[in-house]
Amino acid sequence: MSTHTSKSSRRMFLSGAAAASAYVWIPKPVRGYTAAEMLATITIDNKVKPGTSKWELDTPALCVDLDKMEQNIAKMQSTLKANGLASRPHSKTHKCAAIAKYQLQTGSIGICCAKISEAEAMIENGVDKICMTTSNPSKSKIRRAMAIRKKSSNFIQAVDLEENARDLSAAAKEAGVVADVVIDVAVGTRSGIPAGDDVVALAKVIDKLPNLKLRGMLSYDGGVQHAKGFAARKERALKTIQPNAEVFAEMKKAGLNAEIFSGGGSGTYNIMHQAPGFTDVQVGSYLFMDMQYLAIGGQDDANIYTDFQPSLTVLVTVLNNRFPGLLTTDGGSKAFTLNKPNAGVIGEPGMDYNAGSDEFGSIKITGTPSKSYKIGDKLECIVPHCDPAVNEYDWIYGTRKDKVEVVWPITGRGRSQ
Amino acid sequence: MSTHTSKSSRRMFLSGAAAASAYVWIPKPVRGYTAAEMLATITIDNKVKPGTSKWELDTPALCVDLDKMEQNIAKMQSTLKANGLASRPHSKTHKCAAIAKYQLQTGSIGICCAKISEAEAMIENGVDKICMTTSNPSKSKIRRAMAIRKKSSNFIQAVDLEENARDLSAAAKEAGVVADVVIDVAVGTRSGIPAGDDVVALAKVIDKLPNLKLRGMLSYDGGVQHAKGFAARKERALKTIQPNAEVFAEMKKAGLNAEIFSGGGSGTYNIMHQAPGFTDVQVGSYLFMDMQYLAIGGQDDANIYTDFQPSLTVLVTVLNNRFPGLLTTDGGSKAFTLNKPNAGVIGEPGMDYNAGSDEFGSIKITGTPSKSYKIGDKLECIVPHCDPAVNEYDWIYGTRKDKVEVVWPITGRGRSQ
Repeated sequence: MSTHTSKSSRRMFLSGAAAASAYVWIPKPVRGYTAAEMLATITIDNKVKPGTSKWELDTPALCVDLDKMEQNIAKMQSTLKANGLASRPHSKTHKCAAIAKYQLQTGSIGICCAKISEAEAMIENGVDKICMTTSNPSKSKIRRAMAIRKKSSNFIQAVDLEENARDLSAAAKEAGVVADVVIDVAVGTRSGIPAGDDVVALAKVIDKLPNLKLRGMLSYDGGVQHAKGFAARKERALKTIQPNAEVFAEMKKAGLNAEIFSGGGSGTYNIMHQAPGFTDVQVGSYLFMDMQYLAIGGQDDANIYTDFQPSLTVLVTVLNNRFPGLLTTDGGSKAFTLNKPNAGVIGEPGMDYNAGSDEFGSIKITGTPSKSYKIGDKLECIVPHCDPAVNEYDWIYGTRKDKVEVVWPITGRGRSQ
Repeated sequence: MSTHTSKSSRRMFLSGAAAASAYVWIPKPVRGYTAAEMLATITIDNKVKPGTSKWELDTPALCVDLDKMEQNIAKMQSTLKANGLASRPHSKTHKCAAIAKYQLQTGSIGICCAKISEAEAMIENGVDKICMTTSNPSKSKIRRAMAIRKKSSNFIQAVDLEENARDLSAAAKEAGVVADVVIDVAVGTRSGIPAGDDVVALAKVIDKLPNLKLRGMLSYDGGVQHAKGFAARKERALKTIQPNAEVFAEMKKAGLNAEIFSGGGSGTYNIMHQAPGFTDVQVGSYLFMDMQYLAIGGQDDANIYTDFQPSLTVLVTVLNNRFPGLLTTDGGSKAFTLNKPNAGVIGEPGMDYNAGSDEFGSIKITGTPSKSYKIGDKLECIVPHCDPAVNEYDWIYGTRKDKVEVVWPITGRGRSQ
């Protein structure tokens, strides 16, 4: 267990463009816009100079503590390495090309994307080794997937239906490429083909299709990630993955190419190496944490998940203090989403933050606050659920010791297609 | 009650740039980007030509039926006119400069904005007569507000605190302008100063400040908009506005400039003319409708609010049909938000759509569907709550008779600051 980040990885993270001379660091091509254009957008919001205190930012402001994020990433890498697993982090969590690149630079073997538009946003901004975990069921999306494949031979996409596999092969042929695919094998009843003989049959079909290359399978169990208590989570995760592990073994036995068996997440990163054949985890939230993950409990603490540090916060401003026992802030559901449990106000355990209104947050004072809050005062909050909260913002302020170091566009924000 | 839209207003709506020659119509300056750049962004997603069937769009796709939207706007205007009220629609609902301009062109006296960044997005894209309904409690936001005021003498902003009024006046002086303000008078316990003597005292302070011009007051009752049943809604709306109406009369009696008494919404648009002194309603959802508003009931139907037609929908695609009684789609909380009641699947009363997962929607089959749904089939849904749902998208497809006519950027998307 290491919480140390090497100087070299930090240097990589910031890269040349983040040097002091730059106003804020913006990766050059952002959705096709130049750095100057992106900077123009950002200065509309707030003329943020490096070294600005995060407390001076206009709110609601999405911030990530870079020290904590880097330590989370380092801890994930060292734990997985010790367990013989790789990481293939999910960009649906951060939607940020700069962070994806850092994950790749610090040892991740690839980046998962949930949707084709998210994958496009990533590859257009220099992120390679993308594995798309959702199938593309329309002609248009298949065409878009092949356009990505033409840009990168490291692109992999999920498939779970023979008809779709045939369409993919035909489109790959038309595009003049061989497209890499993994079979999405269901855990639960959400996406994918149920574990069983049909999977091996589909794998055999894919293996014979001229313009597809079978790489293995995905099995993501979304539900188990938030199962409360390490022991319960472990038992459930290893139980639900068992039929899938058997299918994976069958694929190998049948002589099919089965080099990838990917799944798991931030709640099971230290469990999945016990699933036979498992190769890598699709961790997402570990770098940010949120109220949902803090509540699941870990090996060290049954009540709070302390494996990773909460690095992601939203700063809000008090707009009203006139009504007894209540504060109104400028951060509502468009700043936090409606996920539960409620946002946590850092340093104020006696506050219950309800972001139920679109534009406003309502704080109920349930204990004794650390001070008397006035209109204009700011508060820092841990979000209920990091993925959809990040998706509400156009950029994220990267801070170190509470000072802004970088401003990153949320490259894939809103790309739910 | 008219559902007729005149040819001239439709022509205004589409304006010259929407002529058939254009690929899609993009208002020229979008956050400072050129039309070509915005078009580039949009064609990344999908090469949408005018006349494309909405059923061919990659999903999740946010669509507005332009005929229905125009009819909703026309009905609102004719009803308000008959009642002697004006409309000052809220851009927090649509976040779209093109729609705001249409509202102004069809008779609205101004546009409300919830936050300073939203107001910036609107004015930068040619929307004038903005009234900011939330106060600006920081130096930076005050500076930004004055920058807008310098661009437009029609800008009005809310204030609810003497200290803030003095800061605004000082900033206005520094900017070389006189800034128009309205006092936000609370209804309930969310934003604003409670109705009472303090309001008149604040009005007198503002009246004497050299660089502020008092215009009147705002009183928005968010809670009552969704009160179920017309009679209950009317009783509550007129009761909660009463102390505010008294304060407004006192302001007038004291010789203060009180030309604006603004509030109300899509649930009380046909009630607020009975509040003494009321001048205009801050309607938002009326042009789109959503499941929340459909549920409030109206004068004609106690169970369904039929005053306006649902024009806003999200198209989704079936990704999985393998599990009995269930369908998985590609529209989760990032496409619909977590608001309740659940999204409504058009034409399928026997489906319960749960968008509780970030990337996926889960449909429970509770009745008999109209057909057997396959992977790749599409469904059209009414969103739970229009404001935050629109905020999840970068653009909206304007359709007529199910064919795409325009693609508008959601100009103020993510602008929650």
